Amino acid sequence: MKRVIISIAFSFVSFLSLGQFQKDYPYSGVPFTKVKLNDNFWLPKLEINRTVTIPWSFQKSKETGRIKNFEQAVAHTGKLCTTYPFDDSDIYKIIEGAAYSLHVKYDAKLDTYLDSLITLIGKAQEPDGYLYTTRTMGDTSHPWIGKERYEKEHELSHELYNMGHFYEAASAHYLATGKKNMLTIALKNADHLLTVFGPGKKDVAPGHQVIEIGLVKLYRITGKKEYLNLSKFFIDCRGKRTYEKKTGDKEATVWQTGAYWQDNIPVVQQTEAVGHSVRAGYLYAGMADVASLTNNLEYLTAITKIWDNAFTKKTYITGGLGQAGNWEGFGPDYELSNHSAYCETCAAISSVYWNHRMFMMYGDAKYIDILERTLYNGLISGIGLDGKTFNYENPMEYTVKNGKLTGENKRSPWFTCSCCPTNICRFMPSIPGYIYAQKDNRVYVNLFVSNTTTLEVAPKETVTITQTTNYPWEGNIKINVEPQNKKGLFYAMYVRIPGWAKNQAFPTDLYAYKGTLVKEVSVKVNGQPQALKSENGYIAIERLWKKGDVIEIDLPMEVRQTIAHAKVKDNIGKIAIEYGPIVYCAEFADNNGHTSNLIVPEKQQFQTSFQPNLLNGVMTLKGKASAINILDDFSVNTTTQPLVLIPYYARSNRGQGEMRVWFPTRIKNLEILTE
Amino acid sequence: MKRVIISIAFSFVSFLSLGQFQKDYPYSGVPFTKVKLNDNFWLPKLEINRTVTIPWSFQKSKETGRIKNFEQAVAHTGKLCTTYPFDDSDIYKIIEGAAYSLHVKYDAKLDTYLDSLITLIGKAQEPDGYLYTTRTMGDTSHPWIGKERYEKEHELSHELYNMGHFYEAASAHYLATGKKNMLTIALKNADHLLTVFGPGKKDVAPGHQVIEIGLVKLYRITGKKEYLNLSKFFIDCRGKRTYEKKTGDKEATVWQTGAYWQDNIPVVQQTEAVGHSVRAGYLYAGMADVASLTNNLEYLTAITKIWDNAFTKKTYITGGLGQAGNWEGFGPDYELSNHSAYCETCAAISSVYWNHRMFMMYGDAKYIDILERTLYNGLISGIGLDGKTFNYENPMEYTVKNGKLTGENKRSPWFTCSCCPTNICRFMPSIPGYIYAQKDNRVYVNLFVSNTTTLEVAPKETVTITQTTNYPWEGNIKINVEPQNKKGLFYAMYVRIPGWAKNQAFPTDLYAYKGTLVKEVSVKVNGQPQALKSENGYIAIERLWKKGDVIEIDLPMEVRQTIAHAKVKDNIGKIAIEYGPIVYCAEFADNNGHTSNLIVPEKQQFQTSFQPNLLNGVMTLKGKASAINILDDFSVNTTTQPLVLIPYYARSNRGQGEMRVWFPTRIKNLEILTE
Repeated sequence: MKRVIISIAFSFVSFLSLGQFQKDYPYSGVPFTKVKLNDNFWLPKLEINRTVTIPWSFQKSKETGRIKNFEQAVAHTGKLCTTYPFDDSDIYKIIEGAAYSLHVKYDAKLDTYLDSLITLIGKAQEPDGYLYTTRTMGDTSHPWIGKERYEKEHELSHELYNMGHFYEAASAHYLATGKKNMLTIALKNADHLLTVFGPGKKDVAPGHQVIEIGLVKLYRITGKKEYLNLSKFFIDCRGKRTYEKKTGDKEATVWQTGAYWQDNIPVVQQTEAVGHSVRAGYLYAGMADVASLTNNLEYLTAITKIWDNAFTKKTYITGGLGQAGNWEGFGPDYELSNHSAYCETCAAISSVYWNHRMFMMYGDAKYIDILERTLYNGLISGIGLDGKTFNYENPMEYTVKNGKLTGENKRSPWFTCSCCPTNICRFMPSIPGYIYAQKDNRVYVNLFVSNTTTLEVAPKETVTITQTTNYPWEGNIKINVEPQNKKGLFYAMYVRIPGWAKNQAFPTDLYAYKGTLVKEVSVKVNGQPQALKSENGYIAIERLWKKGDVIEIDLPMEVRQTIAHAKVKDNIGKIAIEYGPIVYCAEFADNNGHTSNLIVPEKQQFQTSFQPNLLNGVMTLKGKASAINILDDFSVNTTTQPLVLIPYYARSNRGQGEMRVWFPTRIKNLEILTE
Repeated sequence: MKRVIISIAFSFVSFLSLGQFQKDYPYSGVPFTKVKLNDNFWLPKLEINRTVTIPWSFQKSKETGRIKNFEQAVAHTGKLCTTYPFDDSDIYKIIEGAAYSLHVKYDAKLDTYLDSLITLIGKAQEPDGYLYTTRTMGDTSHPWIGKERYEKEHELSHELYNMGHFYEAASAHYLATGKKNMLTIALKNADHLLTVFGPGKKDVAPGHQVIEIGLVKLYRITGKKEYLNLSKFFIDCRGKRTYEKKTGDKEATVWQTGAYWQDNIPVVQQTEAVGHSVRAGYLYAGMADVASLTNNLEYLTAITKIWDNAFTKKTYITGGLGQAGNWEGFGPDYELSNHSAYCETCAAISSVYWNHRMFMMYGDAKYIDILERTLYNGLISGIGLDGKTFNYENPMEYTVKNGKLTGENKRSPWFTCSCCPTNICRFMPSIPGYIYAQKDNRVYVNLFVSNTTTLEVAPKETVTITQTTNYPWEGNIKINVEPQNKKGLFYAMYVRIPGWAKNQAFPTDLYAYKGTLVKEVSVKVNGQPQALKSENGYIAIERLWKKGDVIEIDLPMEVRQTIAHAKVKDNIGKIAIEYGPIVYCAEFADNNGHTSNLIVPEKQQFQTSFQPNLLNGVMTLKGKASAINILDDFSVNTTTQPLVLIPYYARSNRGQGEMRVWFPTRIKNLEILTE
């Protein structure tokens, strides 16, 4: 019975994507629910998310009072048990992850638990649909929330932020389980919002975006145009508030100009990635959704310009966004300090959302290049190998200065503001949804992950596609194609050739490889080499595909030395080391206890070596470094020592110590640190 | 004839200081005009100021259009020839210095030149007394000056700043030459101000203080109480303007709070040294003047608290003030970065003014300790040995980072904003005025400089005092006392025992010596050792002094290692080296081309060696350092090498290169610089 409901739900979605509405993304993603993983790299990570991270997050939510907040709202009494009124959103995000995980592996106990939570949330909802535990329990003492509903929504009350995450979760729960109990609460709240906000009613630029993409999800499920209109309304409210200072003022800060909230100028006039990175990514994702659904060219040109700015001048090599810890966000162009890099885990997730939508708009592989770089490096570095310790920040180095590390190189089991752990909960199960996309009779292979999927590429004509690979450790990928129709099926396979496999480190000139690849990409169909002419970064193979046809892709897995743009001051004279899509780092644990003392000569060969027992199994790189050794208080020397590198994402799982991604290739001067 | 006029003028001053007004400083300085220098250290510096710096500054003023600005004002036509409307003040400051120098050595040609300039300035004065060349020439296009007179005085028009310096100069010119031509212009302007500003008239907190001390000088000469009242009025105007932000706001800057102008809160409520350091020092000096003349306890308690803050938490070892180049001023407590230390030369002068007045209020030697430290180090480091190259900033180090020096270690022959060179012009000849002070029957010996002076210590009873010393290179000072009265004269000599000679590096805990002195201070009268009991930092010797009596002071000149307060992060684990009142530095020229690579072990003896042909004659210190040598791009070693130190003030006279005051005593870690 359950399965029947689910397949009805998915048929509905499928129906929508085939044109119920006039406009939508030209390229559509294949949802994670259609893709069955069988992958050495990702499957264990998704399993640990399902079996450890999600239960752990529910447990911590209970311990910290996040669930009690709902109980108090039901009782209309009490003081906020936690620190922030947006802590409600953590519950919603864990439910989102749990719903996805129910779909992957049904668990009656978890299903029942979710239902009990949803019932509790439903009771905490006010009769008119308003849902915000802090106010409903009668506690308006928090300086962020205001006496009246939505009074401080333009600042920090997060009333619409909570609801945006609720819609995301309710949509996921409905699509994954077929149940409407959570969706009903969401729709009741959304209908309440329609009575409060809109032209001629209250206007507000939400203080933390996410409601925009949430409303679009409700629209996609229900077809109710008012939800889409409200999403656009919230987006268009931005840039209308009067701030004391304006961008460009010498002393203006992101708060004083509204740039923190991307509220400094109307969105269609925005050209730079500014302010809080998570907010920014959710906003641009929302603008992409609305642009695709309403044919809004102004939104599209704005987010395209902003994307150019963000990924030409403001992105770390790991895909991390946000160099300014002070406002958890974007700094000036090319200011990409290594030790103070913020690169919030949530910002990486937000960047994946944004870049995936940019791909669905343009069909260009460069967005997937960024997505892949972010996913394999800056995003999953936010979760520890144990599945229950987290990093909020993902800097490029930890260095001992003045006797202590620059930043705490230690994963935490939870945070007072625990947005990142719960965002990991919900993001990880969705990863299979980024592997494929479709447009007309084309199937796009965006990521290389062992899996099986069955896709409809023409009316009633399906094909089963099976990827087999040991990516990212090895570069050969086998794609078996099996059309349902025994006569075969004429359609096109678009296989992404990653930038890194074509000697292009980054879609912009922000990063570049030194030297060139030894090998070239090879693509064969049934053993026959294919021409490598690419279209938007894809090799297109259009033919009559028959059962047993096989595509063999061989990507040149070589150790690469990467340099940053000359305007990135922190990395002048430095290199980073990459291998395939993976950014490497040196950790204290493998390098005689230090990494800030290492000089890595450019002229050398690195050796790869897969270590199954290290860090859940990683490919290590071995080279040589010149190490400066402090012999005593007054003397130093230099010795040559092995340099051992591990994937950046696996850092910070072996205690406190130095780590770095960028290495000097020569000594020009030394600064003596005395503590 | 001239000499007669001068002595009349000085008698007048002398008369005033003996009580024409009810209130004044309890301790009075002995003006420089009464003190004849004969000193190896200072006399050559004052001579080079007289013979090189002053003519050079007049020449540069002519070349850069500063004089033409006055000609255009006379013609009521033209555009400002220079960059800033405050450039008028440079002419006034050079005249101030030139007037002093005329007194020291009469020069008819210079006298005539000054008169011609004063005539020109007089013609540029508007009929009602207003004097401000930019507006008078009809150029109100400069964004700082406003359409109406004084419209932007609270910001950057500097109308009252120009006049403050004019009053300073006119007073000096009158006192030094006896001529009234410049004073007349000043009084006409001051009378004009009385019609514009005051209770019930216009109120303004002057955008750059100095008018306050200038008006007090006119009051001291004329006895016209309105000038003193106006000075107090301007001081009391501060802290009344509404700024968007208030101090303490997280994002408030010194501009947004008014702290840049010390306009954030009323002066009597101020407790911290904030904002632009030169403005601050002039304000606090003005408050001291007004406090002493009007018995204003609120002013006195405010500047006492501010002094405590400035000299406990915000002063460099050279006496330099201002750690924030961005606003040329004070930063947060204990934030005393070495390479970005601003320490404007003008701020050192302003600090001497302020500390001398604090001494005149309290009679405490601690203020002279600061004054001496500032004078011998952070102040005269602003002028090159050639007398015609200058430093605006006086940082604690120049280090090669990213392939270039942190700051330009090069003296400039002039600046677009040339406040510092012209402040040097006027300050240097005034130095003899800081040597002595008097109160009742006490003579205070504050500085140790070879000179002769004759003081009236009782009605009609004078004593001639002659100091002979090779200070600061040697610690023995001989003071010959010769009362006019052959019976002798009963009075007290108060000899300052510098803090450094008593193992106290600084009057507060901001700096301290490691270890203790080997020798003790010795004070003898006619060969008889004196008890060393001190009063406010002075050895008091009250007796019947007779001709031929001699005081012999022996200060323990030893090389000292100084450490900074533990909260000064930049200096953790570092030492500075001092000898007597002199702060030393290492320059590239004496230390194998580098200084940032030196580790200076604490356990060592330094050797002193006077080098008559080096840097116009300096005592050098020699020790040993461990030097880190960069052998090639990948390797380093350490060698022991001689460490050669020179006085900080003599830095930057031998080309560009590294320099530093604070030395690591051990290596704990190294940061590798790649460019």
